Amino acid sequence: MPKVAPLSGFPELLPADRYVERSIIDQLARTFELHGFANIETRVVEPLDRLAKGGEIDKEIYVLRRLQGGEDDGTGLGMHYDLTVPFARYVLENAGRLEFPFRRYQIQKAWRGERPQEGRFREFTQADIDVVDKNELSFHHEIEVAAVMAEALVATPLPPMNMQLNNRKLIEGFYRGLGIPDPSAVMRAVDKLDKTSIGAVEEALVQEVGLSAADARKCLDLAAIRAADVSFVDDVRRLGVEHPLLDTGLEELAAVLDGCLASTGRRFTVEANLRIARGLDYYTGTVVEIFMSGYESLKSVGGGGRYDALASDGSTTYPGVGISFGISRSVVPLLARGVLSGSRPVPSAVLVAVADEKSRSVSRRAADRLRVRGIPTELAARPQKYGRQIRYAERRGIPFVWFPGAGGAPDEVKDIRSGEQVVADADEWSPPAPDLAPRVVGEDADSSTDRRTGKEDR
Amino acid sequence: MPKVAPLSGFPELLPADRYVERSIIDQLARTFELHGFANIETRVVEPLDRLAKGGEIDKEIYVLRRLQGGEDDGTGLGMHYDLTVPFARYVLENAGRLEFPFRRYQIQKAWRGERPQEGRFREFTQADIDVVDKNELSFHHEIEVAAVMAEALVATPLPPMNMQLNNRKLIEGFYRGLGIPDPSAVMRAVDKLDKTSIGAVEEALVQEVGLSAADARKCLDLAAIRAADVSFVDDVRRLGVEHPLLDTGLEELAAVLDGCLASTGRRFTVEANLRIARGLDYYTGTVVEIFMSGYESLKSVGGGGRYDALASDGSTTYPGVGISFGISRSVVPLLARGVLSGSRPVPSAVLVAVADEKSRSVSRRAADRLRVRGIPTELAARPQKYGRQIRYAERRGIPFVWFPGAGGAPDEVKDIRSGEQVVADADEWSPPAPDLAPRVVGEDADSSTDRRTGKEDR
Repeated sequence: MPKVAPLSGFPELLPADRYVERSIIDQLARTFELHGFANIETRVVEPLDRLAKGGEIDKEIYVLRRLQGGEDDGTGLGMHYDLTVPFARYVLENAGRLEFPFRRYQIQKAWRGERPQEGRFREFTQADIDVVDKNELSFHHEIEVAAVMAEALVATPLPPMNMQLNNRKLIEGFYRGLGIPDPSAVMRAVDKLDKTSIGAVEEALVQEVGLSAADARKCLDLAAIRAADVSFVDDVRRLGVEHPLLDTGLEELAAVLDGCLASTGRRFTVEANLRIARGLDYYTGTVVEIFMSGYESLKSVGGGGRYDALASDGSTTYPGVGISFGISRSVVPLLARGVLSGSRPVPSAVLVAVADEKSRSVSRRAADRLRVRGIPTELAARPQKYGRQIRYAERRGIPFVWFPGAGGAPDEVKDIRSGEQVVADADEWSPPAPDLAPRVVGEDADSSTDRRTGKEDR
Repeated sequence: MPKVAPLSGFPELLPADRYVERSIIDQLARTFELHGFANIETRVVEPLDRLAKGGEIDKEIYVLRRLQGGEDDGTGLGMHYDLTVPFARYVLENAGRLEFPFRRYQIQKAWRGERPQEGRFREFTQADIDVVDKNELSFHHEIEVAAVMAEALVATPLPPMNMQLNNRKLIEGFYRGLGIPDPSAVMRAVDKLDKTSIGAVEEALVQEVGLSAADARKCLDLAAIRAADVSFVDDVRRLGVEHPLLDTGLEELAAVLDGCLASTGRRFTVEANLRIARGLDYYTGTVVEIFMSGYESLKSVGGGGRYDALASDGSTTYPGVGISFGISRSVVPLLARGVLSGSRPVPSAVLVAVADEKSRSVSRRAADRLRVRGIPTELAARPQKYGRQIRYAERRGIPFVWFPGAGGAPDEVKDIRSGEQVVADADEWSPPAPDLAPRVVGEDADSSTDRRTGKEDR
């Protein structure tokens, strides 16, 4: 077989790193379930007419054909590039069998044929939560979804997260209060603040959108407002613009910000950032972007918001609110930089030594007695000298080696880190709780209790 | 949007059914980890030259191209149709960073563009365990992998499983003992016993392979041997054929059978079935097929065996042994037939009632006190009359409704199945353990403790 090279944009993890990714997925899922979100998975393909909307993303869609399908080999199917499009289709397809408001989380891969760069992959895993209702969605779900995602992120060992909030009603109400007839033209121009200078945006607002210099200035003043508490309301009020939609937006944004404050601390900050818009047509209320502190170069690692029409079958519309968190986008760079790692590449807490091939069944019985009590255990692959079996455990980071007693002697177990070896009964002995499973090492993985048990596989 | 129809061959599950699938995946993973198997995931695509081997499967491969990639839009990538091809590539790619023998499990989707039928899907999930070593793999891993898969399946609520074992050395040794120069021609003919009559196979062995009538008879006698214990050894011996490879094969098959006996009982049976061959070129020792009792029409729901060259980089070969279990193949038909189901479509054990929108934060605080102790809890979406909020819980199968006390009154909790309502403290009350999470209902899901809590979403 030819030499094998990795495929750019399709990250794969070694076992210890994969343990970290799985832990984070499990922790997110646990918080989502504590809040009553049900898990679903959707197929990875969708009909092309549902995926391709004529936007920028279209050219990144991977389309499927059969290898030897003859002339008519098109399947009409493409791989999903997010979890929102398939979720919308799932809701429509199963509307009669779901209870609304429907609360779901979904943790799956998605695919985009974009140019790979740090944190941007062609195959990536993301975690989405959404609440979708029929025809009307209560505002309190916007608070809830942001607060649940905040709580979920805090429960992981990921670096501190910063959630930035805005509200589309606030922006639109402000522009309307200024008497601007086409708020989306302003939004489009202001959205370029990321890529260009304030002066250039100001000029565009005046020259292209046709605002007065004073109005353009006010739009930029609005976009400059950031606050970690509800003081942003006063900042906006000071700009002297009035509109009922602006009032609603301010009230909603303050409520969502307030709902996330319970999670704030060393691990999580939240702020109103009135520049956040997240595209132009999609969202209709709360908008959210999530940044990982110290890793701002990755850009946002999550985002979402309120949308009034996730899906529609003509007679019923399904408004929703959801936030997506990029697991690959955040975790893979942290693993690559060694910020996070797994304490060992195997689940085994114990290696049972094998004296000789004839007595492998004796070792197996000891292992079974440990396993029945939930202790992950493997047997030495070869009946080598005990020193070599200990090194076998060491290379895998397995903290304990078990020696079955020969000729009526009791079993013994050795902590290969301290070298301490004691008599032990396989029906009673347990490793200390922190040694039972691999652990996530680094960042906020409770590093005070960390004892690395050996070499890792990375 | 157009009316949405399901896509044939791409099964999707409603939340209660998805809970069943996830439970089974978690239970399998738990057993694999208890035996020291580490989890990995591989990307879903492989270079086409690695996937397409000129066999039957080639025309079922899904190939990726970019939607708007221009003339040169081929990616050279296809979606994997099993987890063995990507695992072999992963081992080669990471050989320098893995410890051998390398024990891994992998639970992922795979794709085949075949004609959908019951249990056969175009997108399906499977669970694989393999042990791979460098250059030489100890035989005891063949016992281990079969025994671990047996133990893992018994720990799920799936119907009883029947594992059928054979050994390629046994078959080849027997044929060589008869003086047959081309054992694979005989194997190819005998392999057709599934599809044709014994008489037709006998004729083919004589006419096409060129065996004597007596030898052909003996080959068929061998293929007819089945036994649930090591008595098959005597049955083979009685055929009077001798060969050292046959001796090895008999010894190995007896040892693998013996290793699986610990799991036998009402939930699992194992037998030697000397007709099992599993293809022609790939396997070199133990071969395994798994059938689900009562669902033999699904054909095998799992299989695998020993292969001497999973992968090779020219200088090093990587022999291994592995078994794959079809999660979609077994679980989806059971869900469709209603044999298995989830007890409720939401994780929530408690619905906290909301008296009015103003006091939602009071309800939220009660919910948080329950959640912090691991009790999945959601809030009523609307402050309707309590009777309607109770029906909201009922429709979701949520067993308990929590009523925050108003004006200094204590909180109360109602078991909506019995109607019993008691005073309760959100810092202390817990639901009975079986109500904490949804449960798998049916088959061997410990149905004695089953109390269905309400309607499901299927």
